[in-house]
Amino acid sequence: MATIGDIGLAAAINLITAFIFLLAFAILRLQPFNDRVYFPKWYLKGLRSSPATSGSFVSKFVNLDYRSYLRFLNWMPDALRMPEPELIDHAGLDSAVYLRIYLLGLKVFIPILFLTWAILVPINWTNDWLKDSEANYSNIDKLSISNIPQGSHRFYAHVVMSYAVTFWTCYALKKEYETVALMRLHFLQSEKRRPDQFTVLVKNVPPDADETVSEAVEHFFLVNHPDHYLTHQVVMNANKLSKLVEEKKSKQNWLVYYQNKYERNQSKRPMMKTGFLGLWGEKVDAIEHHMAQIEKLSNEIAEEKEDVVNNPKAIMPAAFVSFKTRWGAAVCAQTQQARNPTLWLTEWAAEPRDVYWQNLAIPYVSLTVRKLLMAVAFFFLTFFFIIPVAFVQSLANLEGIEKRASFLKPIIEVKPIKAFIVGFLPGIALKIFLILLPTILMIMSKFEGLLSISNLERRSASRYYLFNFFNVFLASVVTGTVLEQLDTFLKESVSKLPEIIGVAIPMKATFFITYIMVDGWSGTAGEILRLKPLIIYHLKNFFLVKTEKDREEAMDPGSIGFNTGEPQIQLYFLIGLIYAVVTPLLTPFILVFFAFAYVVYRHQIINVYNQEYESSAAFWPDVHGRIIGALVISQLLLMGLLGTKAAASSTPFLLALPILTIGFHMYCKGRYEPAFIRYPLQEAMMKDTLERAREPNLNLKGYLENAYLPPIFKEAESDSDDDDDEMGDKKWAKDNTLVATKRVSRRNTPVPSKVSNGSSPNLEEIQEKDKP
Amino acid sequence: MATIGDIGLAAAINLITAFIFLLAFAILRLQPFNDRVYFPKWYLKGLRSSPATSGSFVSKFVNLDYRSYLRFLNWMPDALRMPEPELIDHAGLDSAVYLRIYLLGLKVFIPILFLTWAILVPINWTNDWLKDSEANYSNIDKLSISNIPQGSHRFYAHVVMSYAVTFWTCYALKKEYETVALMRLHFLQSEKRRPDQFTVLVKNVPPDADETVSEAVEHFFLVNHPDHYLTHQVVMNANKLSKLVEEKKSKQNWLVYYQNKYERNQSKRPMMKTGFLGLWGEKVDAIEHHMAQIEKLSNEIAEEKEDVVNNPKAIMPAAFVSFKTRWGAAVCAQTQQARNPTLWLTEWAAEPRDVYWQNLAIPYVSLTVRKLLMAVAFFFLTFFFIIPVAFVQSLANLEGIEKRASFLKPIIEVKPIKAFIVGFLPGIALKIFLILLPTILMIMSKFEGLLSISNLERRSASRYYLFNFFNVFLASVVTGTVLEQLDTFLKESVSKLPEIIGVAIPMKATFFITYIMVDGWSGTAGEILRLKPLIIYHLKNFFLVKTEKDREEAMDPGSIGFNTGEPQIQLYFLIGLIYAVVTPLLTPFILVFFAFAYVVYRHQIINVYNQEYESSAAFWPDVHGRIIGALVISQLLLMGLLGTKAAASSTPFLLALPILTIGFHMYCKGRYEPAFIRYPLQEAMMKDTLERAREPNLNLKGYLENAYLPPIFKEAESDSDDDDDEMGDKKWAKDNTLVATKRVSRRNTPVPSKVSNGSSPNLEEIQEKDKP
Repeated sequence: MATIGDIGLAAAINLITAFIFLLAFAILRLQPFNDRVYFPKWYLKGLRSSPATSGSFVSKFVNLDYRSYLRFLNWMPDALRMPEPELIDHAGLDSAVYLRIYLLGLKVFIPILFLTWAILVPINWTNDWLKDSEANYSNIDKLSISNIPQGSHRFYAHVVMSYAVTFWTCYALKKEYETVALMRLHFLQSEKRRPDQFTVLVKNVPPDADETVSEAVEHFFLVNHPDHYLTHQVVMNANKLSKLVEEKKSKQNWLVYYQNKYERNQSKRPMMKTGFLGLWGEKVDAIEHHMAQIEKLSNEIAEEKEDVVNNPKAIMPAAFVSFKTRWGAAVCAQTQQARNPTLWLTEWAAEPRDVYWQNLAIPYVSLTVRKLLMAVAFFFLTFFFIIPVAFVQSLANLEGIEKRASFLKPIIEVKPIKAFIVGFLPGIALKIFLILLPTILMIMSKFEGLLSISNLERRSASRYYLFNFFNVFLASVVTGTVLEQLDTFLKESVSKLPEIIGVAIPMKATFFITYIMVDGWSGTAGEILRLKPLIIYHLKNFFLVKTEKDREEAMDPGSIGFNTGEPQIQLYFLIGLIYAVVTPLLTPFILVFFAFAYVVYRHQIINVYNQEYESSAAFWPDVHGRIIGALVISQLLLMGLLGTKAAASSTPFLLALPILTIGFHMYCKGRYEPAFIRYPLQEAMMKDTLERAREPNLNLKGYLENAYLPPIFKEAESDSDDDDDEMGDKKWAKDNTLVATKRVSRRNTPVPSKVSNGSSPNLEEIQEKDKP
Repeated sequence: MATIGDIGLAAAINLITAFIFLLAFAILRLQPFNDRVYFPKWYLKGLRSSPATSGSFVSKFVNLDYRSYLRFLNWMPDALRMPEPELIDHAGLDSAVYLRIYLLGLKVFIPILFLTWAILVPINWTNDWLKDSEANYSNIDKLSISNIPQGSHRFYAHVVMSYAVTFWTCYALKKEYETVALMRLHFLQSEKRRPDQFTVLVKNVPPDADETVSEAVEHFFLVNHPDHYLTHQVVMNANKLSKLVEEKKSKQNWLVYYQNKYERNQSKRPMMKTGFLGLWGEKVDAIEHHMAQIEKLSNEIAEEKEDVVNNPKAIMPAAFVSFKTRWGAAVCAQTQQARNPTLWLTEWAAEPRDVYWQNLAIPYVSLTVRKLLMAVAFFFLTFFFIIPVAFVQSLANLEGIEKRASFLKPIIEVKPIKAFIVGFLPGIALKIFLILLPTILMIMSKFEGLLSISNLERRSASRYYLFNFFNVFLASVVTGTVLEQLDTFLKESVSKLPEIIGVAIPMKATFFITYIMVDGWSGTAGEILRLKPLIIYHLKNFFLVKTEKDREEAMDPGSIGFNTGEPQIQLYFLIGLIYAVVTPLLTPFILVFFAFAYVVYRHQIINVYNQEYESSAAFWPDVHGRIIGALVISQLLLMGLLGTKAAASSTPFLLALPILTIGFHMYCKGRYEPAFIRYPLQEAMMKDTLERAREPNLNLKGYLENAYLPPIFKEAESDSDDDDDEMGDKKWAKDNTLVATKRVSRRNTPVPSKVSNGSSPNLEEIQEKDKP
């Protein structure tokens, strides 16, 4: 059993690790040649360009100003300084609301901390149960519920506290739901005109012998929405085209690589082999070869483009239908169109950036099958993932390798290599699997046929959370593989489950404290360092970058990663709520995580991430639902725990809690969830009226006509009629029109926040550098 | 263990009982003075009037024609003769589709009967497992799965058969869902103009300091549906008015009673006491007293009516809003109106007959609480109903009564009374509870705040089914009280449950066969006799009836009673599907039930029941879902059973079945369910266009203006400006305009069906009687 001293040591180690990460970050971010890794958001917004334009050659790459190193934690207050409305302007509502999840964590757990420490810690401490029982115990256990004697009346304190925790959490949740719903409404209200406000996605257009899909769509909507229909854009199967464009891009990268190589060493033309991976085949001049290939691909792309537009088989039975008014679109999206409820399915079109084009034409029956298949697959993935991993591990053991590849024997028998294989290889299979898991879940969601990237991420997030719940939380509490757990779940009675898990809960407190420190503290500190993007950027920079534009393309701002980040937060909510009453000692560790992560992610959102889409916080009902789930689980486990503590008189009082919590959830679902799913007609009518008054002569048709052209078409277009460099520009320009910004672009200096000075974190440094 | 002989005996007894019921029915229905009990539907449709207009005095009451008694089973082919489209015309779609549930039972179980008897019965019979095991067994068990030795490969036959049963059932279900969805669509299409097609119910109108509810509604819809809004009708709290009208009606009944009494014996004016229940108080002339009272009530009603209309407090924050087109109403019903999703809630208005007026003004928060409360209450009702019943039983024992009411001791000690109390009283508490159960469930649904009678019945039906599942099915299989079962469920592991129940299944076959015969066969035969309405009609007839109109009001046609009938059918589906593979012997008994009940209910629907509302078969998704549920339960139980039979090699093949079945359900839900919930715009637009073409000058506003006036207002109106007798007429006239009829009313002779002769069952008898 870990003592408080052990925990202190672990905390010290993790704090030092985090500190080292932060120090490394502080140093790296000040170097001008890393600027694009740590501040890509500002570059994308056009508010910052490469700092390496003035000064000496060295100062292009290394920051020599010692003063800037002294204030290496300055980014923290800077990150906190930007007010929320400006943050929404700057990074979108999704990001701003995502940060509120961390804030919610603070709001929930700070009062819980005070309450439990003021009441439960003394109650737990002033017992001698553990001492008397002569069990193996530590000071931590003396602070926890384990120290209360069997059947003591003191358990009433825990019951009351459980009510307090539940009511406080529900209150905070309700407030937050209300706020987020209002923010969403306000955001939608104040938004500029966007194509998706007028557009509905129609799927399962029935085939017609006499009409093309386009004609059928036009006729149907002219008949059934005569006063509102404006125009439409059929969905084309551009997957082949997209593949060709991909290929051309890759070839262009190689061309640039060889050209750079040639420039550096002009004595020798770079050569390459044409065969597989350049390992064999004819040797040719690499630059000429690639130029010829690109030429060929460009022609193919042009042909394919022609083909997609004209070939009726490439037209899918789906279309984006635009209406004259937001009212018309809102009506069409929320109603059933055709008699046959599987035809002419309508739903809000996601904004063009958010559409997942590949899934647009999956037929109805196939969708059901895919959904079911993925549900089964996810079940097996969660409970049986250990089988293939163990199989790979069994292959990767020493004897196995020696047997299968005897020629490797002399190498393997070398001591250090042997030690490495024995020590690390088996673990690596599991580690690789866990790293790949979010990708696997994302592929599953894609296979399921969801239509927008935001939807894909939300589905993946909920699956990732479930996986974590079973394979991280439960597997840690009920020691043993998940397979064994499944066996327990099936073999044991329903009422026994909370007991089995509940009893193990207090004993695992130290484990989870350590987990929070390693995964939460050090992990978050590691996040800010951005090691992977840093390395990739510098590799690309070295091999591929010729112009400023190339450098911009080499930047990888990434996005929040809702599908991995949110499940992690939820796991902390779960652990925090469960231990709030059982082991109050754990709460401060959770709080440190929430506070630290809030600052770090706020910094990242301001300076790094570039959100791919804007779903206007559509994910909040999921967040809310999962916290409610964690609350109910914590209540059931407390019931199970008290059940074994012979506290028969106090346990029944807990029965009402889950029922009340579920009732609260139902209430919130009815009260707030529609604000995240539907678009009220009142709202639509108001915006329509305002717009008509302001711009009576608006050419809406021209505005909407090409809004939902598949991006690959736009790319292919810009590709064929111009050189590649301008493409990036266009894309970002488009992004910028979609996320409104009130700032005026000024070369090299991010504009200070209107409210505080220096919202842009390293403004001072740059200004200092810019001085002559 | 029951032998085949025992079952035969039981069958004989039940057949004789059923036969006696049928004979009694045959005799009673031919008596003219029962005509209104057994053919009220025809009276209500105006196609039949009292037969007692010609002929001798005796033949007014007793049918003296011996020939009509010879053909006493003639009603059966008559009931089957009316073709379905005419049935829909005659009794509405709800009734016609309700009958299809019985037909579906036949369609599902006839092929299953042939399959299982051809394949499973020989396989089961040609074993000697039971003989060898020296267990207590009968011939019935020799035919069941119990006779297969442990671990035999013959279980593969049962697995394959289980697949066959599942596929066939799903196929039949899909066909039926398709048919019913089409019938519904066709019905809605061919329907005449109905107010609910144009009307939407708006709830939670927000209070406004400056506007009345009526003004607020008008403004809101004029702004947000400017092209479509037509008119509206606010909902008034008429509960007090309704109570006054009730009271007046009752007084009028008494008045008639005393007047009748006085007419028969004119020597003495009837006197009464004014106190409680007429037991004490001043003695007054009864006729004068009641006349005065009625006069007073009439004035009060007029006052209250005035008050309700003018008092703003009596106006509830809800309204029926009517639109110019069906399209406008469809749009409004399916979309969210206001920013705040708990205000301006819209839904399709139920047809005026179907509206449950009392619940119209329950606020949103209260609804959530009520829903949750009722869920908890139902849980306790299902699992703990036995506690209060047992308590009442304990009160009702002999010693208890003697102790509490010692003055009763001499009476109780009389032998036969004592025997009665000991033998019957304890059982009566349970019996009374079971009789009251549907009413209790209905009250629960009403408390929950559902808005239409059809919805109330559907909710009650699903709860009644669950109650039956636990308290009839499971309680019979796993012997013991339901409380003990709950204990088992909670204490035993999840995977053990199917085993525990599955093992008991084959042993209970004889019990369920008996159950089907008693509850299914004799019960259905009892249904046709209509004992309760018969007695009540004659009592009313004797005391209250003066005129033809009074006699019409004394008729109580009743309605199908979806909330009790459908759960019963579902229980048979459940039993049938479970035993289809386990004990094929049971299937024919189920089949007899379905066939017999089909004929009986078809007869009742044609001749007796008068459906209160028309929901256009909105209940079908529930029916479908419950059969799917029964299918999955049967599969799980078979898995559990085979698991104990050491048939480890064949059991895993069953695993795919529930997954496939659930997938099928998901598919059907997506494919057909929307047809039962939403109203496609295509449909609305078409009907609108047709109507505009046919009746360009239609005064829709006049048509809709008073459609949703609360019925109590109409009653009060007709009451105040006219005498009571005409009221019934008006009401029925209204009913008749709602259910379309193609028949022409002819005095005394129901018109023969267009397709066959004598669709009206006792046409011949009447015609014969009418001859001079």
